[in-house]
Formats: sequence, C-alpha cells, structure tokens
Amino acid sequence: MTQDIFHLILRVQADYVRCIDDDRLESWPYYFDDPCTYKITTAANYREGLEAGIVFANSHGMLSDRVSSLREANIYEHHTYRHILGAPSILEEIDGAVRSETPFLVVRIMRDGQTDIFATGRYLDLYRVREGGPKLAERIVVCDSSRINTLLALPI
Amino acid sequence: MTQDIFHLILRVQADYVRCIDDDRLESWPYYFDDPCTYKITTAANYREGLEAGIVFANSHGMLSDRVSSLREANIYEHHTYRHILGAPSILEEIDGAVRSETPFLVVRIMRDGQTDIFATGRYLDLYRVREGGPKLAERIVVCDSSRINTLLALPI
Amino acid sequence: MTQDIFHLILRVQADYVRCIDDDRLESWPYYFDDPCTYKITTAANYREGLEAGIVFANSHGMLSDRVSSLREANIYEHHTYRHILGAPSILEEIDGAVRSETPFLVVRIMRDGQTDIFATGRYLDLYRVREGGPKLAERIVVCDSSRINTLLALPI
Repeated sequence: MTQDIFHLILRVQADYVRCIDDDRLESWPYYFDDPCTYKITTAANYREGLEAGIVFANSHGMLSDRVSSLREANIYEHHTYRHILGAPSILEEIDGAVRSETPFLVVRIMRDGQTDIFATGRYLDLYRVREGGPKLAERIVVCDSSRINTLLALPI
Repeated sequence: MTQDIFHLILRVQADYVRCIDDDRLESWPYYFDDPCTYKITTAANYREGLEAGIVFANSHGMLSDRVSSLREANIYEHHTYRHILGAPSILEEIDGAVRSETPFLVVRIMRDGQTDIFATGRYLDLYRVREGGPKLAERIVVCDSSRINTLLALPI
Repeated sequence: MTQDIFHLILRVQADYVRCIDDDRLESWPYYFDDPCTYKITTAANYREGLEAGIVFANSHGMLSDRVSSLREANIYEHHTYRHILGAPSILEEIDGAVRSETPFLVVRIMRDGQTDIFATGRYLDLYRVREGGPKLAERIVVCDSSRINTLLALPI
C-alpha cells in the first residue's frame, strides 16, 4: 500500500509540472479537488505563521480565473518554466488522504533564451485519492527565497 | 504492468545520464536501438514542426562517430555535465513500446570550476523493451531555450 | 527484491535531504550507521585517489560534533540549501548491503534571497538495510567542481 501511494504521488507530481511547463494551463485546475487550497508563500512567512501568501485560491473557479488573467495579460508569452522535482516524502496516510512534501526547483526561460533559477522550495500537499487519481485538496507552495517576484506569472 | 514500466524507464534514464556524466561516452550508444533517432532541437523549432535539429543521428554508427569526434577534438576535456532528471510521464504503452516524456536540467561545470545551467528541456522518448532492458528507438531532446550553444560538445 | 531496494533507496534519499533542508540537522547523523564514513571531496581528487577530502567523519559522534559547531558558529543562519536529487543507480546488492550512486544539485539561498547553484555532484553510497530502514555505512560526496567553498557550512 505505502509503496503504491508513493508511486501514485510521484507520478501525479510529474504530470502536474508537465501540464504547466507544456503551457496547458487550462488543465491545471483539474489536479485539484474542488473546493481546495492553493497558496504560494515564503519560508519566512510560513515559519512565522503569517497567513498572507503571494497567491491564494480555494476553488477551481479561482484557479481558472487566474489562468484567464494570465492569458489576457499575455505575460505568460514572455517566458516558460521548467520544474524539476525531487521524490516526495510521504508524511501521513489516513483514509484515502495523503500528506506529502516534495522539493522543487523552477527554472525560468525568457523568450530571448536567458535561463535562470526562478524559485526553489517545497510543496506541502494534502492529496485525496479519488477514482480518477489523486487530487490536491491542499497545496502550499513554500518558496525558499523571500525575493520571489510579486508578479508571479505562471503557477508553481 | 504500468508500474513496472514506469520503473524500468525511471531507472534506465538514471543510468543513461550517469553514463554521460561519468564520461563513459563510448557506452552511450548502447542505450539506443539500432537504427534509432537521436535529435536535439529547440522548443521553438519543435513547436513549428521545423525538422532541422542541432544534432541528428540515426544509428549506433553515427552516435559512435559523434563520440569519436568529441574525443579527437578534446573539447570534452574542458567541461563536464551534471544531468538532473524529473520522473518520467508515461504517455503510451503498445506492444512493448513505451512513449514517455521526462524533464531535464543540465548543469555545466567548466574546468576552472565555474558552474552554470547549460540547458533545460524534456526528452520525448520512444523506448522498446528488449531482453537486456529498454532501448531508445527515438529520443528527441527539446531544449527550452533557443540560445543553445551550437558547439554542443557532450550528449544531452 | 531489486525493485524494492530501488524504492527503499529512492525514498530514504528524499528523507535525508529533507532533514537537512528543513534545518533538522540534529537528526542528520541518524541516517548513518555507527561507525560510518562521511566524506566530501572533489571529482578531481577522487579520480586521482587523493584521500584528503574537504570534510571527513567516521562516527555519529563526529557528525554530531559538526552539527554542534555549525549551531555555535551560527553560520547556518545566513543561508539554507535546497537539494534536488536524481533517481539512484543501484550498482550492487550483497547480503543486505547496497551500493548506489545518486546525482545531486544543491541550491543555496542566502538570507537576502540571493539564490545560486552551490554544488553539483554525486553521492557514492553504501547502505546497510537495517530493521528501521537503510543506514549509510558510507557516503562519499563527490562534488563536480573544484571550486567548492572551503567554508562548507551545511551538510550535503
């Protein structure tokens, strides 16, 4: 069981980042439950229990709205991301819910080819295992650096 | 079955990059079928269906020739790579053939110690599961940036 | 068996780096056997069989001493790491001992948010499978670059 859960999470994480990096943002909300929690914050804020994140959404509607804004603003055209994830640590499994933590590195590629580390951090996730696969009931994206660009264009 | 295939691919990818990063380039062609397709291209060219890649080979012979040229040119002595891969997404399995996609990050380490991101992108692979393990019938290396050094010394 | 071993190693590596990146350094020695070998060296020194590493420890006591020094020096407060690992290559399994190699990338995040590649390389590991999970009998951290900061604050 535990090994199967580890796999399920390892694989869905790979699909999640592929969805973003392939610019299929309209499919991105479907990795979440509805309602859900999606939050981007910094390690410093997270450690001190500060609620205010950089990004917050609690439903498919809000996630989709975010994608629509990106499409309209055309900001997304200026760059792409490449997410590289480590293997997840499974922290807890209860009744079809799985708490896991996964380290990430996001590289940003600007249209002129300039390539930089955009962010590093960890996903603090609560997955619910549904028939169609695991869905994110909660994803808190904790960025290591406090110097995260407030104009966060693409999802992490 | 699916889980076994996922493993097989996950593990052979790790061996593939280890072979390159350990400078055992002469063994590199054996990760491929013969004939095969190995191509390095950019995301922009790939999206527009432009055939011209940066590197192209369709047999063990051509892959080996490439390695010989590198050895003769001694370019490879000036730097090493470190590949970091994400987990593969398995896209299709038919009759012992597996289509998968895997994100990569290649860091280049110059002889003086200077360390930079050399390339990011994804492997679009067609593996055939042979007795001795999976072999690459096709690997298209799609680099995110268009600013890929045309003097691509080492394989990606 | 082999697949189970691969998993065991994949998962314990994820836990190991999470322990460091979460700043739970006091738990770090428990990933090792006692006695053990922990060494950080460079690819150039390793290739030439030079024994002198940058860091060396051969017991829980020495590993713990290292952590205490870091805590006292307060150097650790100035930055954090984010380790991103590739999947391990399992090289050998004999009588509950596993030799594996795993590529790593360590990103360093300074307190002001500055984020850089700190080191890349590979772990050359000898794990012993104990009741409570695999323990490192030996970890040789081979850094690709010779320009590794001699004031290595945190474990790799």
